[in-house]
Amino acid sequence: MAEVLTKRNPAEEIQALQDTIYVIGGKWKLPIINSLCNGNRRFREIQRSIPQITTRMLSKELKEMEMNKIIVRKVYPDSPVLVEYETTPYCKSFGNIIQAMIDWGKEHRKMIKDE
Amino acid sequence: MAEVLTKRNPAEEIQALQDTIYVIGGKWKLPIINSLCNGNRRFREIQRSIPQITTRMLSKELKEMEMNKIIVRKVYPDSPVLVEYETTPYCKSFGNIIQAMIDWGKEHRKMIKDE
Repeated sequence: MAEVLTKRNPAEEIQALQDTIYVIGGKWKLPIINSLCNGNRRFREIQRSIPQITTRMLSKELKEMEMNKIIVRKVYPDSPVLVEYETTPYCKSFGNIIQAMIDWGKEHRKMIKDE
Repeated sequence: MAEVLTKRNPAEEIQALQDTIYVIGGKWKLPIINSLCNGNRRFREIQRSIPQITTRMLSKELKEMEMNKIIVRKVYPDSPVLVEYETTPYCKSFGNIIQAMIDWGKEHRKMIKDE
């Protein structure tokens, strides 16, 4: 079946792009999601895995992401109390974006080394 | 040939992700690239195509993107002088990221409407 070339709708594209940037924009959200996807669950683990992120910045981002249902915060009433973070199924939908950005970043670094 | 499962390198992934966010992060760079890819070349055309971007913000971003070789600025010595912007081949490498974000944004909007 001939591939139906859907005519691009620039206004719809820009709107979709801005919606996405609104939800996951900024310096830290995607690195945090990637860190969680790589198995880090506790605050210190996540922090150690992301260069230059401060304690204040990480806790602010985690709160926002929890509010936006990108992650869930689980509290285990042990002694001391144990807090862990997990991605939500909704969060997994960022997989393609994160992978495209990782691929670009790796290519970009190779290109700069070859220069 | 069995697919060779490359072991993930979290540190390399976070580095690549942060490199990419450094180059195209922020609210406006990807919408500007998308606008140029949709055929807008002049300042006012680009500005009209991106909701909420101010003249000051657009000119600041265009300067930065020109410096980072993401776009080129062409001046035609007509009267009045004509200035146009074009993407560079390097800029085209963002295609996958932009498409992944547009796809996510469209899905996100559908999901919210269905709620």
